[in-house]
Amino acid sequence: MDATIFYYYLGMAGVVAFAVTAVLAVIPKGIDLFGACVMGVITAVGGGTIRDLLLGVPVFWATDLNYIWVSILASLIAFYGNQLMERKYIYSLMLYLDGIGISLFVIQGADKARLLDFAMPFGPVLMGVLTAIGGGLIRDVLAGAPNLLMKKELYAVPLTIGAVAYLGLLQYFPEHTELLAFCCGSTTFIVRACAIHWDLHVPNWMMLHNNSD
Amino acid sequence: MDATIFYYYLGMAGVVAFAVTAVLAVIPKGIDLFGACVMGVITAVGGGTIRDLLLGVPVFWATDLNYIWVSILASLIAFYGNQLMERKYIYSLMLYLDGIGISLFVIQGADKARLLDFAMPFGPVLMGVLTAIGGGLIRDVLAGAPNLLMKKELYAVPLTIGAVAYLGLLQYFPEHTELLAFCCGSTTFIVRACAIHWDLHVPNWMMLHNNSD
Amino acid sequence: MDATIFYYYLGMAGVVAFAVTAVLAVIPKGIDLFGACVMGVITAVGGGTIRDLLLGVPVFWATDLNYIWVSILASLIAFYGNQLMERKYIYSLMLYLDGIGISLFVIQGADKARLLDFAMPFGPVLMGVLTAIGGGLIRDVLAGAPNLLMKKELYAVPLTIGAVAYLGLLQYFPEHTELLAFCCGSTTFIVRACAIHWDLHVPNWMMLHNNSD
Repeated sequence: MDATIFYYYLGMAGVVAFAVTAVLAVIPKGIDLFGACVMGVITAVGGGTIRDLLLGVPVFWATDLNYIWVSILASLIAFYGNQLMERKYIYSLMLYLDGIGISLFVIQGADKARLLDFAMPFGPVLMGVLTAIGGGLIRDVLAGAPNLLMKKELYAVPLTIGAVAYLGLLQYFPEHTELLAFCCGSTTFIVRACAIHWDLHVPNWMMLHNNSD
Repeated sequence: MDATIFYYYLGMAGVVAFAVTAVLAVIPKGIDLFGACVMGVITAVGGGTIRDLLLGVPVFWATDLNYIWVSILASLIAFYGNQLMERKYIYSLMLYLDGIGISLFVIQGADKARLLDFAMPFGPVLMGVLTAIGGGLIRDVLAGAPNLLMKKELYAVPLTIGAVAYLGLLQYFPEHTELLAFCCGSTTFIVRACAIHWDLHVPNWMMLHNNSD
Repeated sequence: MDATIFYYYLGMAGVVAFAVTAVLAVIPKGIDLFGACVMGVITAVGGGTIRDLLLGVPVFWATDLNYIWVSILASLIAFYGNQLMERKYIYSLMLYLDGIGISLFVIQGADKARLLDFAMPFGPVLMGVLTAIGGGLIRDVLAGAPNLLMKKELYAVPLTIGAVAYLGLLQYFPEHTELLAFCCGSTTFIVRACAIHWDLHVPNWMMLHNNSD
């Protein structure tokens, strides 16, 4: 499988994960089918869309509407299919699916910026993290829910480290793009999965403790 | 009247409707003149601005500041003029004016994307709906109000159907752009007006009923 | 010091002020280090980024990552350094720093749009005000805090007048760009500082008084 196809399916899998988790997250807010699809599509393609606007390139879904169709289809399935799932199961599944999505998108977003030579060397890290968390931020703003920046979960920190590791290692092994993408993405997901399973938070030195009032 | 002028006044009427409804909607939040004008302008041109950014074309008001002036003037009139109107009347007028605005913008936005061959065949539908509801979404986010995605009103569904109908019929009658735009826009508004008058909601199969907790 | 360097340091000083005030403002919300840096960076470069997207030029920080580094550094210092400051002092400092930031950015943003001949004659005013308040609006939306449009403070009005004065005076004294930028920016800050010190609000005719319910 060559790199183009590899990244294509990487992105599509992320789109499904993001749309499904977005719809499952907003259903308790009492959303209808249209709202669910809008939330699903925005969450799935929102981060990548802002990235492409900042990069000054055409938005990625304009030349390939499959991203939109897949996210609408995933939203529909999540909307009607949620009744079959148990509450507890939904919540847990949602967290892990989201973990897969962000791990996929952070590498993909960093890679797109890197190939465009955007704001090297730190620009690709910013674009990777933006691709991963941008859609979720828009979803939370539209849903009126507290967003990830307001929580102390170990969420965005592994992403940032994953992007930095990927771009750093590429300097030394430029010929192993797919392997590095897979390893850094997987490691990011594993760290995130551990954070979900053991309910890990950001380390103490990353928090302030004098503002307990 | 040729097509260009037709679309120009179509857009300008929509701008007035959006600015007025936005200002009337945020006045109870205790906004001052500057905030009212910002809300009016953002709501009036916000959806079209995001559309133009996604289409990769210059924002529509950059070459014709009349859109900005008209929305500022409409905001001023709505701000100072609201005292003359009764509460009940304002609320009802607001809903119908907004209905005209969204019906105008969904066709205009879809048309702009279609003429640019953007993400055919579904891209123009997305851009039409975005043009229509984008400004309102930004307004609600800035005003801290629940947005249309969180309500079960029959609001965005007629818009989407109107855009799909317009683009579908254009395939068969490509020479009747203005007529089709008028018919589909009017029909969209009539459906929306009925939804306002009889307080119609989205059909049952578009809602979830198991999440009543 | 030539104009380019003058504007460069003008922008960088604004970035520091915005990042610091953003971090100090969101710390009580219980944010961690990552969230603080994201808030700092978004507030610092957010307004200018939206301006550049609307102007259709590459985002200003893409060719000069110093804006990002400086805002991350300022966020880190504000995050860990806030413990040394007294509460009262933080709040007051925050307001004045923010006043410097908006006064700097409104002139800088208006100037960038003017040099690009964007939507003359009113476009530069819009872009100046957007550059100044855009980052803060995004910060407040992400933090779930009421934004400046919802307050009756004398905040955005001096900005708008400053931008109009700067662009108007440039018509008569086109050879004194730096001097006019300094004078209009300083005057804007002085008006804002008076508004902070004496707790000034927008004049009565800019408010509605019949909506006291």
